[in-house]
Amino acid sequence: MTKFEEVLELAKRRGFFWPSFSIYGGISGFMDYGPLGTMLKDNVIRTWRENYLKLGAVSIDTPNITPEPVFRASGHIERFSDIAARCSKCGYKSKLESLLPADSGIPKNIEEAKEIVEKYKITCPVCGSRITEVYDFNLMFRLNSGDVTNLYLRPETAQGIFVNFKLLLNQNRGRIPMITAQLGKGFRNEISPRQGLIRMREIFMGEIEAFLDPETNNFKISDDGSEISFLPNTLKPVRMTISRAVEDSMINGDHAFFLSQTYNILRSCGIKPESIRFRQHRKDELSHYSSDCWDAEINMDGEWIETVGIADRGVYDLSRHQQFSGEKMTVKSGDREFIPKVIEPAYGIDRISFFILYDSYYRRENGFKVLRLAPDISPYHAAFFPLQNKDGVNDLAWSVYEKIREIDPYVIYDDAGSIGKRYARQDEIGTPYCIVFDYESKDDGTVTIRERDSTKQIRIKYADLERAELFRNRNPFPQFYRN
Amino acid sequence: MTKFEEVLELAKRRGFFWPSFSIYGGISGFMDYGPLGTMLKDNVIRTWRENYLKLGAVSIDTPNITPEPVFRASGHIERFSDIAARCSKCGYKSKLESLLPADSGIPKNIEEAKEIVEKYKITCPVCGSRITEVYDFNLMFRLNSGDVTNLYLRPETAQGIFVNFKLLLNQNRGRIPMITAQLGKGFRNEISPRQGLIRMREIFMGEIEAFLDPETNNFKISDDGSEISFLPNTLKPVRMTISRAVEDSMINGDHAFFLSQTYNILRSCGIKPESIRFRQHRKDELSHYSSDCWDAEINMDGEWIETVGIADRGVYDLSRHQQFSGEKMTVKSGDREFIPKVIEPAYGIDRISFFILYDSYYRRENGFKVLRLAPDISPYHAAFFPLQNKDGVNDLAWSVYEKIREIDPYVIYDDAGSIGKRYARQDEIGTPYCIVFDYESKDDGTVTIRERDSTKQIRIKYADLERAELFRNRNPFPQFYRN
Repeated sequence: MTKFEEVLELAKRRGFFWPSFSIYGGISGFMDYGPLGTMLKDNVIRTWRENYLKLGAVSIDTPNITPEPVFRASGHIERFSDIAARCSKCGYKSKLESLLPADSGIPKNIEEAKEIVEKYKITCPVCGSRITEVYDFNLMFRLNSGDVTNLYLRPETAQGIFVNFKLLLNQNRGRIPMITAQLGKGFRNEISPRQGLIRMREIFMGEIEAFLDPETNNFKISDDGSEISFLPNTLKPVRMTISRAVEDSMINGDHAFFLSQTYNILRSCGIKPESIRFRQHRKDELSHYSSDCWDAEINMDGEWIETVGIADRGVYDLSRHQQFSGEKMTVKSGDREFIPKVIEPAYGIDRISFFILYDSYYRRENGFKVLRLAPDISPYHAAFFPLQNKDGVNDLAWSVYEKIREIDPYVIYDDAGSIGKRYARQDEIGTPYCIVFDYESKDDGTVTIRERDSTKQIRIKYADLERAELFRNRNPFPQFYRN
Repeated sequence: MTKFEEVLELAKRRGFFWPSFSIYGGISGFMDYGPLGTMLKDNVIRTWRENYLKLGAVSIDTPNITPEPVFRASGHIERFSDIAARCSKCGYKSKLESLLPADSGIPKNIEEAKEIVEKYKITCPVCGSRITEVYDFNLMFRLNSGDVTNLYLRPETAQGIFVNFKLLLNQNRGRIPMITAQLGKGFRNEISPRQGLIRMREIFMGEIEAFLDPETNNFKISDDGSEISFLPNTLKPVRMTISRAVEDSMINGDHAFFLSQTYNILRSCGIKPESIRFRQHRKDELSHYSSDCWDAEINMDGEWIETVGIADRGVYDLSRHQQFSGEKMTVKSGDREFIPKVIEPAYGIDRISFFILYDSYYRRENGFKVLRLAPDISPYHAAFFPLQNKDGVNDLAWSVYEKIREIDPYVIYDDAGSIGKRYARQDEIGTPYCIVFDYESKDDGTVTIRERDSTKQIRIKYADLERAELFRNRNPFPQFYRN
């Protein structure tokens, strides 16, 4: 098995995620989060939300169902499509791009697509016949029920922010720069969705729209000196600090600010520095609304995969909504009135959640599987075990567990099987600490705490566990890290 | 203005919620949560989730888009419909039920509906013409895009749990009772959606499916002696403890357990005891899957409105999915194999969020508006004000604010306008504490803390604010409550 397959196997077996609707044969492009996956994803969401809240972001939560005029203005009805290819012999369907050789270039419209298919003699990967059908395929899902027409499922949460720009600006007392945030679903009718959490038809997104004065630097980058990997569109990879990237004019300062926020969030989620790079889009892959875009990519089995897209949307969206709705989308500042420009970091929360598992997964020398999750991201903060299931050891363990659970519900109790099995069970799901009660606990009030990565054990008073701050603290057991 | 209208006005003006897509003329049945509403709703969700996590619940998160076979099995395609009436003269559409007199009874099918419309001479409330058209109106939204057929938006999150019953049971190591939980959207194509967060087409739900051994009592009610209002289907209102309701056989013990959990959650959200009652469904209003159902209702302007539905779904769903999918949906316990029965408390998170505002709203003698929110539910835990915007008072206030924000991002800074205006601004959004810095703060390190409801003020050292637990604690300033 590849590491990817091992992680998928663990994810399904331990209840992080699995394919949806399996009792009815499944349906591609949909995944369920199981009990542990739900908890992990919630931790990713909290990390993301609190990062931006500390920067003063204002949040909004708008419907998935969105009426057509919004997507006429945004350009999605006209342009949010892929060029698809269909084999007229066997019926196989695919995004045309995935069938093209590296040197063909990417067609911009159906005419170019037809020429390329002809010129490169593109064939069906299933039956080998020549491809003849190419067509525009809009990726939005449309609703069609009873008296309902012209409703769509949103492909991104962003438009819910743009149409509310004036109301949000008012909540922000008219101040620019304004960082706005939305968490929620986006829906894309992918032509050929892939397995796992990588390409899905229903995705959980965290989107930031930062509204900026186009004529000044709106944010100050606080640089801790970390060197980050970049792949600019010159295709020459470089490692440098984020400040240096700005000084060298590789990237605009406000745009870079959100690269650095993204780097911090991915690091807070526990993703290793060497697994992260920022890649600049080539001109021919930019979306219809963006003038520059950098993706945060995560390395998986040697392949770099887009996880966050940080686009400069300029004044495109607000100008279009001003034009289509007739409502002014301007800001007043002194005697100047202007449409703010927008930087949009869009996070794929599903992909981040999956990569957290992938990036943290390793096997011990004995072959046992471990998730080296950040304590703040792990589904459980600690597991409680009685070493003996008798003589009151179990009663003591349970009673302490119950007290802690009132303070911190993210704890688990396990009294089944040998202590080694129980450690292994928790290692596999990333629980950073196991707390073991034994006969001594009854006598002198101490318990053993075992740390996941070092497997080191220390002995502390269990009464100390009951102090609330212990389980609110990001590093509840500094003893492990002192020496 | 009625209290309802006053609360709507405040909610919109201060950014709790407002109608969606207003720049394009709006669309009925959809609301946006603004910056404060998003934070309030998150607090409701956390309260709900942690309540059930402490009971050992396992969570799941399944897609909104659901394939047809699931809803064939669940009965939604056949039966999840309302009888609608349409005026053939002016085109007005409505749920037939809303046009009927109290004594007509509720029609079970189209034939009965036609008879009643004829017999009671039902007229159009808009143009006064006699209603002649009645028809079945399925409330599910169907997708229709490109090559996609037979996909629906789920009307409830519950089916995502039932189709995963065996996988969840496996995660729960085969143990029954098993409490499962899902938070997410449900979509209902309501014929005539009402204003506000009361009847929407896209709703945020928190659903619990508790899988039980039908032959024993699965849960123990812990009763704190509070008397609760009930309206059983005998229509005789009573007040009694939850234990008494079980002893009197008014309600089954396991069913009652979830009424008491629901009561606790609503109380934790700060809703007043006198605003809550439990009403039993009449036989003729039970859903197709339930044999008994109690609604938690909240009082609004004298009207009782359903907010949580706690249904006994019996073995209906699992039996149907077993039959339609061919997968066994049984539990083994000793030498017995059985399909567990299900109690389902389904929470309307939007309605709860709205009623929290409604129930906490009052006006002081001077007419000023206040939300008496529970400190845990309030969008902000505290506001920081400099009394003077000079001489370093503002710098000190800002620096302490910045430190606290690292510990607890749910704090706000305000330096605009008179101190009275700033208090009023925070009272209106329910912030429980305002922390004021002045010249003395610079000299002796103290600040004034002002409590929202009593408007009482105390003086403490601001260094004490910086201790992490202060802002993690549910009652950070016990000084206000001691005497």
